[in-house]
Amino acid sequence: MTRTLQSYIHDAWWQPSASDLAAEPAVNIRDATTGEVVAGVSTAGLDLRAAMEYARTTGQASLSALTFHERAVLLKQFALALTERKAELYALSTHTGATAADSWVDIDGGIGVLFSYASKGRRELPNARVELDGPVEVLAKDGSFLGRHIRTTLPGVAVQINAFNFPVWGALEKLAPTFLAGMPTLIKPATPGAYLTEHAVRILVDTGLLPAGSVQLATGAIREVLTHSRLGDVIAFTGSASTAETLSQHPAVRTGGVRFGAETDSINASVLGPDAEPGTPEFDGYVRQLVTEMTSKAGQKCTAIRRAIVPKALADAVAEAVIARIAATVVVGDPRDETTTMGALASTEQRAEVLRQVHRLVAGGGRVLLGAGQLDDEHSAFLTPILLRFDDPHADRVHDTEAFGPVSSILAYDSDAEAAALVNRGGGSLVTSVASADPEFVARLTGRIAPGNGRILILDRTCARASTGHGSPLPSLVHGGPGRAGGSEELGGMRAVFHYMQRTAIQGSPEMLTAITGVWHPGAATSADVHPFRKSLAELRIGDQVVSEPREVTLDDITHFAEFTGDTFYAHTDEEAAAANPFFPGRIAHGYLLLSFAAGLFVAPEPGPVLANYGLESLRFITPVSPGDRVRVALTAKQIIPRETDDYGEVRWDAVLTNQRNDTVATYDVLTLVAKSATPAA
Amino acid sequence: MTRTLQSYIHDAWWQPSASDLAAEPAVNIRDATTGEVVAGVSTAGLDLRAAMEYARTTGQASLSALTFHERAVLLKQFALALTERKAELYALSTHTGATAADSWVDIDGGIGVLFSYASKGRRELPNARVELDGPVEVLAKDGSFLGRHIRTTLPGVAVQINAFNFPVWGALEKLAPTFLAGMPTLIKPATPGAYLTEHAVRILVDTGLLPAGSVQLATGAIREVLTHSRLGDVIAFTGSASTAETLSQHPAVRTGGVRFGAETDSINASVLGPDAEPGTPEFDGYVRQLVTEMTSKAGQKCTAIRRAIVPKALADAVAEAVIARIAATVVVGDPRDETTTMGALASTEQRAEVLRQVHRLVAGGGRVLLGAGQLDDEHSAFLTPILLRFDDPHADRVHDTEAFGPVSSILAYDSDAEAAALVNRGGGSLVTSVASADPEFVARLTGRIAPGNGRILILDRTCARASTGHGSPLPSLVHGGPGRAGGSEELGGMRAVFHYMQRTAIQGSPEMLTAITGVWHPGAATSADVHPFRKSLAELRIGDQVVSEPREVTLDDITHFAEFTGDTFYAHTDEEAAAANPFFPGRIAHGYLLLSFAAGLFVAPEPGPVLANYGLESLRFITPVSPGDRVRVALTAKQIIPRETDDYGEVRWDAVLTNQRNDTVATYDVLTLVAKSATPAA
Repeated sequence: MTRTLQSYIHDAWWQPSASDLAAEPAVNIRDATTGEVVAGVSTAGLDLRAAMEYARTTGQASLSALTFHERAVLLKQFALALTERKAELYALSTHTGATAADSWVDIDGGIGVLFSYASKGRRELPNARVELDGPVEVLAKDGSFLGRHIRTTLPGVAVQINAFNFPVWGALEKLAPTFLAGMPTLIKPATPGAYLTEHAVRILVDTGLLPAGSVQLATGAIREVLTHSRLGDVIAFTGSASTAETLSQHPAVRTGGVRFGAETDSINASVLGPDAEPGTPEFDGYVRQLVTEMTSKAGQKCTAIRRAIVPKALADAVAEAVIARIAATVVVGDPRDETTTMGALASTEQRAEVLRQVHRLVAGGGRVLLGAGQLDDEHSAFLTPILLRFDDPHADRVHDTEAFGPVSSILAYDSDAEAAALVNRGGGSLVTSVASADPEFVARLTGRIAPGNGRILILDRTCARASTGHGSPLPSLVHGGPGRAGGSEELGGMRAVFHYMQRTAIQGSPEMLTAITGVWHPGAATSADVHPFRKSLAELRIGDQVVSEPREVTLDDITHFAEFTGDTFYAHTDEEAAAANPFFPGRIAHGYLLLSFAAGLFVAPEPGPVLANYGLESLRFITPVSPGDRVRVALTAKQIIPRETDDYGEVRWDAVLTNQRNDTVATYDVLTLVAKSATPAA
Repeated sequence: MTRTLQSYIHDAWWQPSASDLAAEPAVNIRDATTGEVVAGVSTAGLDLRAAMEYARTTGQASLSALTFHERAVLLKQFALALTERKAELYALSTHTGATAADSWVDIDGGIGVLFSYASKGRRELPNARVELDGPVEVLAKDGSFLGRHIRTTLPGVAVQINAFNFPVWGALEKLAPTFLAGMPTLIKPATPGAYLTEHAVRILVDTGLLPAGSVQLATGAIREVLTHSRLGDVIAFTGSASTAETLSQHPAVRTGGVRFGAETDSINASVLGPDAEPGTPEFDGYVRQLVTEMTSKAGQKCTAIRRAIVPKALADAVAEAVIARIAATVVVGDPRDETTTMGALASTEQRAEVLRQVHRLVAGGGRVLLGAGQLDDEHSAFLTPILLRFDDPHADRVHDTEAFGPVSSILAYDSDAEAAALVNRGGGSLVTSVASADPEFVARLTGRIAPGNGRILILDRTCARASTGHGSPLPSLVHGGPGRAGGSEELGGMRAVFHYMQRTAIQGSPEMLTAITGVWHPGAATSADVHPFRKSLAELRIGDQVVSEPREVTLDDITHFAEFTGDTFYAHTDEEAAAANPFFPGRIAHGYLLLSFAAGLFVAPEPGPVLANYGLESLRFITPVSPGDRVRVALTAKQIIPRETDDYGEVRWDAVLTNQRNDTVATYDVLTLVAKSATPAA
């Protein structure tokens, strides 16, 4: 009897009752290469409304108890657990028709997203629950009224509705930013390959580390999902444009304020530059990349190249080279066989659909240059690569028809402008690549096509070895594109996290902004009881401050510093020349001298919790310091970021240098590492 | 005969032909206080499709010929021209029923947005056409493959469809960021007050400075606007939720990739803290602000307070104080009369609509505490303030019904959690204000309500004088809110500009990223012919570089620097203690000593084009420097930003310090001012 995949709901594994299954039979999933049934899926009897409400209550509560860094550490532990058991995932993955290389993209690619967010989350977000967006806006001259933008977690549930092609990556690339943002997730995998998503979630559950309600899995239909959605929820959909349109028409999205993001089909392009003639590394790289994109995952990638846009003079050479490379390197067959380089499509239904679209392309002007068509096996979903050429590059069909398999079309262009126009005919794409060693051509083309693309990859000889390739979305770069590509953005580091948060402008007094953000704002209360460098991270509070005595900066100091450092810039050494400079009253002190004196003024020399000054940010010299001026410095603890996995953390200090007239001489942030406990490792 | 307002199309004033007007008569606009016809509006016979295409071709071309800074300078000139002729606008504004104070918000407020974007645009954007979003992402260990996000101008036309309440501000607050982004605009004013928008555009046209096709005005209906829209266009709508929904349903938005933003009605709240008892400055400020928001612009502001959420114990006191303040300070009448403090609604139709909504509120549980209702004049649109109280604060009507006039309702709460829940019942708001002097209450409440609000204003005694108030959107802070408020964001400084640009991830070699962005990326070509400090802005090119000789850092240097500056931190002075520090091998050089030596190594001392080092960014100390180490510095011109209105500009230099093993010791950006010409002012 066929195993029915489980769902994970209310922190427990769930499956339909026998009677529910009898009333509404499970949908069977077949092995892409053998046609055998692997498992069935069904959510008959599932209380979806309750599951979503559980996420909004228990899931929100358990995630909001954690800081960004605590969530990031969990992501790393999930990634490690998946890594340890990835052989189980690879074994299941062959049922989808994927080769080992295809599975690597899905499985290791997905784990890589978790690692990336675990690492970037700790580097780029504070160890807090509120994210600050942009600098302070001073709204009143006296500084008593400030503005600041913050981001807070959306209070609902994030539902991910995934495509069939990447059962693991698709779930994890949406989970990582959502989890980091603090939103609970409900995962809805596509039916083909759902067993792989189910198993990945099982590995996460088995860690015992999932916060209550933070992750749920509905293996089967969730038709009522929008009916149960409300303001504060997010629906992130990957799949067909028609389904995306249907979902976006629901009142919950239209007027209910539910955020809806779609990543749909995209007729991606790859442009060969006029300089990239046969024999150049760019020509070879272009051909290699095109064949890779046609055959990797059997062309079932939303980022695959559908339109090869090449100079008219090079079109025949490209076609010949592509056909030769396919003949020499592509072996279509059972992914369990080590000699296979290209596996099957996801299902025989999918193969039929791809062939329908190929016929549409041919009817629209495509000439078949290569294409043995399907292998003769009604139970398996194999299909050999198909290369078309459109003699009229402006034919509509090639720009609006996606055959979601190993299919690409060659189009020839005459000029830069025509190349750009052809790219843009795609109506918005996830990615376009350009192979050229000519920076001017590349810059010109990029300027014209950037507004219609979510990502542009430039391939030249200097990056060919290191390039991650046209088809690979990376965690640090946005994935998504305008128009036909769906209009949403995923990944892109913290950019994706912020799609699960609300940006809010906050206005108020320094004290109130400090209380709301957890970051000290100039004008808020300060405390100067003990030198703050003597306080451990556990003792230190934002607003702790040291204000130094004044120090006179003498002409001797300036002269000496110039000689000692070699910085004999005329503004420090030549009174007449300095006075002629539009910004200086005469000889002035070196900025670096002032920084150095300031450090001497605020330092607490003996060993203590402050371990190192690792950097400095946003230094501005405001008022020049003349010989005889007296400077002092105020240093105030501004932001405290304990590290989750070290015995120290980061403290950002607000530094303000003033002169004897209380003019601001310089402002900057000092970045230090401070031990968590009073007795540092030293 | 009634004047028909003109449209401004194809860089010329346009009006319907007599025959078109005869076939489709103009719609008349009446003075809000006298009922007299002021003007008529009609776009009968206008070729809207051609106007939009003119923007996409001529408008895009003329704006893309300008850099961000050049556009910003034009915005300033527009602001100055409007300022000079603002008396003309004030005179027209009285027809809308606005008092002088109301007109100030509309006219001076609108001009202020232009000034703000003119200034922020030059400070926060490069003097270029491409904006960089976020730092470089290093995608290969050897640095040969990099990622970066850029923003480029959307290639279409931005259509603004405005509400009736702010004919000048509404047009300018959308124009400023759009123009700065480089998108041409088509302005569609609401019919009431359209004469005011027309006149503001006339002042812009009269400057002779509008780039061809950059601004068009359609004074009258533009029903086919979405039919003529396509990918790359933006529709920014302010008005009713039902119109917003209709527009968002058009296929151009649903599947065509046209960006659509809506700012709709919002049931904004103002919360009084439990600490803010009668007699406190917060109580007084709360009452004052509530009355201001009820009466300013006769309550016809999307940001006005509709729900006054107050502690149960203070509800009666608030009601009494509000009623007393209205009695003492509010004089409803002809805005031309200097004693008037509150003018008319926009039209008698609008008054009827407000009263319908008040009846709905009363039917839903609202008790009328104050409300003489309309003044007895069928031709004028006066309405005195109406204050309601809901004994059941959870009644649906008070949270979903907006009476767009001088109408507010008082709701009492028992606990923090209830106050937050009541705020959130609004289903997404533009703004909520909180009056309290208790930072803990404020932080707690803000955390709960931030995800449902675009802006939160905290009112306490320390900012009461400087506060710009609940109802005022500021150019530097986002305006817009989730859910019922429409879901879009306007203003917020450069955030609004970016809504008119596309974000694209770029991947490639350092050379290619340099060519595309105009900013030097590490690994791209460098040139070291002449010391770059000897080059004027006209001569300097990105990639110009100086690489210094090495300098040994001796123990004497470190000891001397410690004594000279007073920075006797143990890591520099005590071998044993330094070695016990987890990050240091033993005594190390001061970071500031290294910075100072680096300046001595890269400086060109004689007077020249480099005028000043005004700051430093992103300094990180990577590898400690021990006595005997030899450091050198490479300084490379990274970004060149000429100023439009000065004879100098900004140059950002990439600085890298390395030691004798070629380890990176420190990295930072040096910020300098450099003269445009070879002979500086000096």
